[in-house]
Amino acid sequence: MTKLKNDLLLRALKGEKTERPPVWMMRQAGRYLPDYMKLREKYSFFERVETPELAAEITVMPVHQVGVDAAILFSDILVIPQALDVEVQMIPGTGPVIPQPIRSMEQVQAIPEIDVKDRLHYVFAALQETQKQLDGSVPLIGFAGSPWTVFCYMVEGKGSKTFDKAKAFCYTQPEAAHLLLEKITRATIAYLKEKSKNGADVVQIFDSWGGLLSPLDYETFSLHYIREMVNALQGDVPVVVFAKGCWFALEEMCKMPVAALGVDWTITPHMAREFTQYQTTLQGNFDPSRLLSPVSEIKKLARQMVDDFGPYRYIANLGHGILPNIPVDHARAFVDTIKNYS
Amino acid sequence: MTKLKNDLLLRALKGEKTERPPVWMMRQAGRYLPDYMKLREKYSFFERVETPELAAEITVMPVHQVGVDAAILFSDILVIPQALDVEVQMIPGTGPVIPQPIRSMEQVQAIPEIDVKDRLHYVFAALQETQKQLDGSVPLIGFAGSPWTVFCYMVEGKGSKTFDKAKAFCYTQPEAAHLLLEKITRATIAYLKEKSKNGADVVQIFDSWGGLLSPLDYETFSLHYIREMVNALQGDVPVVVFAKGCWFALEEMCKMPVAALGVDWTITPHMAREFTQYQTTLQGNFDPSRLLSPVSEIKKLARQMVDDFGPYRYIANLGHGILPNIPVDHARAFVDTIKNYS
Repeated sequence: MTKLKNDLLLRALKGEKTERPPVWMMRQAGRYLPDYMKLREKYSFFERVETPELAAEITVMPVHQVGVDAAILFSDILVIPQALDVEVQMIPGTGPVIPQPIRSMEQVQAIPEIDVKDRLHYVFAALQETQKQLDGSVPLIGFAGSPWTVFCYMVEGKGSKTFDKAKAFCYTQPEAAHLLLEKITRATIAYLKEKSKNGADVVQIFDSWGGLLSPLDYETFSLHYIREMVNALQGDVPVVVFAKGCWFALEEMCKMPVAALGVDWTITPHMAREFTQYQTTLQGNFDPSRLLSPVSEIKKLARQMVDDFGPYRYIANLGHGILPNIPVDHARAFVDTIKNYS
Repeated sequence: MTKLKNDLLLRALKGEKTERPPVWMMRQAGRYLPDYMKLREKYSFFERVETPELAAEITVMPVHQVGVDAAILFSDILVIPQALDVEVQMIPGTGPVIPQPIRSMEQVQAIPEIDVKDRLHYVFAALQETQKQLDGSVPLIGFAGSPWTVFCYMVEGKGSKTFDKAKAFCYTQPEAAHLLLEKITRATIAYLKEKSKNGADVVQIFDSWGGLLSPLDYETFSLHYIREMVNALQGDVPVVVFAKGCWFALEEMCKMPVAALGVDWTITPHMAREFTQYQTTLQGNFDPSRLLSPVSEIKKLARQMVDDFGPYRYIANLGHGILPNIPVDHARAFVDTIKNYS
């Protein structure tokens, strides 16, 4: 492995003291960058995801244009259902649609055991290509959805505010639900292990919809499977878990062998530290819509955020993905404020 | 005022010990009841809201058919923007749409001072009619949206997962945002005072979108105005505040002179008590989608909920509005479990 020029992120994940917190932004690859918008006009979503050269180009864009301390591979959490032979369509303006959502034990049983190396070869090629282009400048993050979050889409069939169909499936057909979660978990573990072998210096698990569950159901249908993943990946690659809306599980989550936990913006840094007691590095938690504020306000709030988390065992980030309508200079003001923090 | 036959709710709101917790369900009037669905086929949403006889009929339905311990007036939080001369359309399948959303100081300044007695006479007539039909059986709850939640719709122009336009308005035009929030607050205070004079035994303030804000922004743009309302209503009528997703503000909220605080299902009863230290009665927090579970499971979970909150200073309820697809016998199983709790 090439020696990294900027290894701030890796050191923060090890719990080492760093000269300043590393900074990156969830969804930084894509969405708001004008050069990305141009690629979006020429190539469909899955062309961008499945063409290693395009995915790599999009991945390194924010490193060069915004100056973040890490790259995160341009991809999608729904490559896993696709690999499991579940068709996923990406409808512009609507989001993901799964024409035949999973609603029965028969459908769950029909999901095959897969060889991720074969099915998701384009992701591993994209990682290798990205590492070439990064040329040791910053670490590269790979990611996957949590089993629960991927399950939500596979069962609901599309995005939702409440994912009631996915929840109803758990509550009325728990055996089928657990079998599906287990199949997603196994595939995702293999996927992230393979990512780590192909250039991912860090992996992040996104549990975007865990916050829709009660704490008890969260343990049963989400955290249980995240734990299985984190344990299986231990020793292979540092793992960050970001569970949006899951403040109630932070205390439990920091008992897992994670390198960091992400937190959203609806928790104060003080409370997040109180729940986790410096047992792990924390990552977050700037309100993505606060990047719509004037630049002077962004700077003030970003500094305050670092003050409140404290400069160590901390990775500056947003509390969720960057919004498509954020001006690039606002994103840059956020990143620069952290880089100039002292 | 007629002496109530069942005053469990009022006693729980006073903090008195009750023989069992009172139980009602948010959104119990409408949505899932077959008799309501029939009315929905004959009358438009606003016909149902604005015709006192219809609103009363819908309001008392769950008292007779499901056996809840309180009625809540069938109405909508968006009657306030309407009264403020902001057009609201209710599009079936889409939800509320505000064709000219508020986006400038000029628009905010143009919002008139109103006489709620005149503008919202149909609500007060509906309360009076409902009280006649209830005939002292159970207390009647009136409600309003929190200023922030009403503001969200007025600025965004429609429902949203993130209400980014509403948030951006706060962050880029704070003066205009605060003036609008203040105007909504004044109208809502007058509205709830008038409701209390016309038959509302209790009022509940719904802050459905407070959980989209950071704790700091929540204080500035939401809790500040809720506090103004609660203080203004003190002595007139018991006030319940339900702020969905605002676990982080419970400690602050229970310092207000509220009769109860609602909590959603993403917090354990234990944590909710820890944040509020029995300083107020708590209401909630059954996951609405858990009513899709088999009846035996509903009974088990409902009993566990009362065990966990403890039987006093507690009002059994859902953690958010009942879903339209809940079978009536599931709702009844929930209510009966609480009524048989000992």
